[in-house]
Amino acid sequence: MLKDWRIKCLVPDLPELDEVAPFIRRMDTARWYSNFGPLVSEFEQAMAGMLAKTSALPADSLSVASFSSATTALELLFRAAGLKEGARILTPALTFAATASSIRITGHTPVLCDVDTHTWDLTPAIARALLKTHQFDAVLPVAIYGFPVDMDAWAAFQAETGVRVFVDAAAALGQQAVHPDVPVCFSLHATKPFGIGEGGILVTGDAELAGHARRLSNFAFIDGTSREIGTNAKLAEVLAAYGLAQIGRFDAVQTRRREVLDQYLARLGAGRFHPRINDFVPGTLLYDTGDRAQAAVARLNGAGIQTRQWYFPPLRDHAAFAGIEILSAGGTGAMPVVDRLQTGLVGLPFHAFLSGADIDEIAEGLEAVLGA
Amino acid sequence: MLKDWRIKCLVPDLPELDEVAPFIRRMDTARWYSNFGPLVSEFEQAMAGMLAKTSALPADSLSVASFSSATTALELLFRAAGLKEGARILTPALTFAATASSIRITGHTPVLCDVDTHTWDLTPAIARALLKTHQFDAVLPVAIYGFPVDMDAWAAFQAETGVRVFVDAAAALGQQAVHPDVPVCFSLHATKPFGIGEGGILVTGDAELAGHARRLSNFAFIDGTSREIGTNAKLAEVLAAYGLAQIGRFDAVQTRRREVLDQYLARLGAGRFHPRINDFVPGTLLYDTGDRAQAAVARLNGAGIQTRQWYFPPLRDHAAFAGIEILSAGGTGAMPVVDRLQTGLVGLPFHAFLSGADIDEIAEGLEAVLGA
Repeated sequence: MLKDWRIKCLVPDLPELDEVAPFIRRMDTARWYSNFGPLVSEFEQAMAGMLAKTSALPADSLSVASFSSATTALELLFRAAGLKEGARILTPALTFAATASSIRITGHTPVLCDVDTHTWDLTPAIARALLKTHQFDAVLPVAIYGFPVDMDAWAAFQAETGVRVFVDAAAALGQQAVHPDVPVCFSLHATKPFGIGEGGILVTGDAELAGHARRLSNFAFIDGTSREIGTNAKLAEVLAAYGLAQIGRFDAVQTRRREVLDQYLARLGAGRFHPRINDFVPGTLLYDTGDRAQAAVARLNGAGIQTRQWYFPPLRDHAAFAGIEILSAGGTGAMPVVDRLQTGLVGLPFHAFLSGADIDEIAEGLEAVLGA
Repeated sequence: MLKDWRIKCLVPDLPELDEVAPFIRRMDTARWYSNFGPLVSEFEQAMAGMLAKTSALPADSLSVASFSSATTALELLFRAAGLKEGARILTPALTFAATASSIRITGHTPVLCDVDTHTWDLTPAIARALLKTHQFDAVLPVAIYGFPVDMDAWAAFQAETGVRVFVDAAAALGQQAVHPDVPVCFSLHATKPFGIGEGGILVTGDAELAGHARRLSNFAFIDGTSREIGTNAKLAEVLAAYGLAQIGRFDAVQTRRREVLDQYLARLGAGRFHPRINDFVPGTLLYDTGDRAQAAVARLNGAGIQTRQWYFPPLRDHAAFAGIEILSAGGTGAMPVVDRLQTGLVGLPFHAFLSGADIDEIAEGLEAVLGA
């Protein structure tokens, strides 16, 4: 597990001490270290502004609430949303464990489905088809591997069907558009494009919903008494310092990720990557080796190059989710797209510190197994 | 709420940038920002050593697991402990909301009781007496206001009765002894004597229990699959940097708190403080004004001196805990000691930055209302 790979799959790109120091000095002066301090407030405001701008929305149309993680953001979103107890929430079979655990730990019921063969995610078309034969109370599509979901399409689905939509865009900050009507959670974990260490945000146009989730992160206190069962999921002030420093360098972070991706595309072509690889920079870089995955992994690992099969095995095969219901048109619980992807997808090194020589070496390793 | 008090009730005493910088530089070099990184491991080891030493235990007798907060430490302790669903956990009626919310959010049932007239906490004698007439599955005594509970007595209670004991010592790090047989959670929140911003630790002699709770803080992953429903409650590496810096200055922190307390005692005497005020330095300083609380509060607040009625109103009177069961010998649900304390206790300013002149002024304000 702690093997010292020569080329690592993922190296976080966070601000260093000198970039964070001005914000930490402000914290030292204020002596305010948590509980909705000035840096957290400033970070939430700045993030709302950044996200509104990139989604061409008015600056005041979004509320951002910060939490200790994207997982706790999802958990408190579900607690705040007023879903009925045990509500069935449809989410894709291909995702990180947090997507389904956040549903279950809050007393709701995750139900899974296969993903789209082209976009690898749960689409409005899939949800619409399933609604004809199955019942569910809400949908939680996932911005898989950092590729954004279609927010306008989901907003339309929600308006038409009355089924509520929440989005898990943990890995997609910087790529995922936001929409006032569709609450979305982003991760700020160190391994994400916008990393601060640990943290997450909820973004929504519903200021009341954001405020409710925020209160739940501090025991639902109002005027000194707890109004409902909550927890402590507040973002520490020092992590907001990292967030503010990261906002200041995020354009450069994204540019560098784009450069690395372009080097990969120049070397390997777009054909075996995600179908939308030319339009978006992913959170993690998956390459489809067909049925040669084990050979590709062995070749790269043997050369000191780390790989990861992100989100595999799928949730169905985790003990935590044993027996979980999988909805399918025929009622068989089949998920052929996920099964196909599992045999072939390999996560390649993808981070800001890769050199052109690193990428050449990775490409040569793949070509040795798969052909040019 | 944000009134600018001239003398604040509580001012956090955390390491400043220069003291934390060496640890942050190590993090920058390692590029490891969460998920059980080297600073978290070193902090847990150092904390185990510090706590074992002050409790005269062998250094390797304790496991320390760190979490995003003391609340999440309690929650994951309850999830890891294998309690039956809905287990009834006895806890004092006088405590912070997290004590009871952590029980309820994990599917268990908090039941309350009055506290001891002398020590203001839930004692083994109270629990033993209630066991004769009531049923409960575990006990969660609280180190109220930072005054430690008697760990040896609780270990004996647990051994004799078979009722499991967990301790909420959120405010008592530095004062609360630890015991291998009785798991205890401490808060590292900014407002606590050992502050890092946000964080908490579980301390136990049961390495398996600590490991289980730690796994639950990372989705119960083992070898890449989630084994049971968990969450993300990991301590970020930068907060462990604060923890390591705080360990290095904690003797000085405790000395300064002792000095401030001694100045209070010299000025006001011990009579109206907690009965054990001469033996322990509290987390927050409560003063018993009898039935003159409102007059004392008005006098001090009017002079720009902040006060707090910590943990009042009691949980019974929070909407989150409406209808909560209160065990009492006569079955009346009465809690006369808590009721008496509520009429009189006032939290005085207590932190490292108080001057002798501040304390004189506070004392004069109290004496003007209460007499010398």
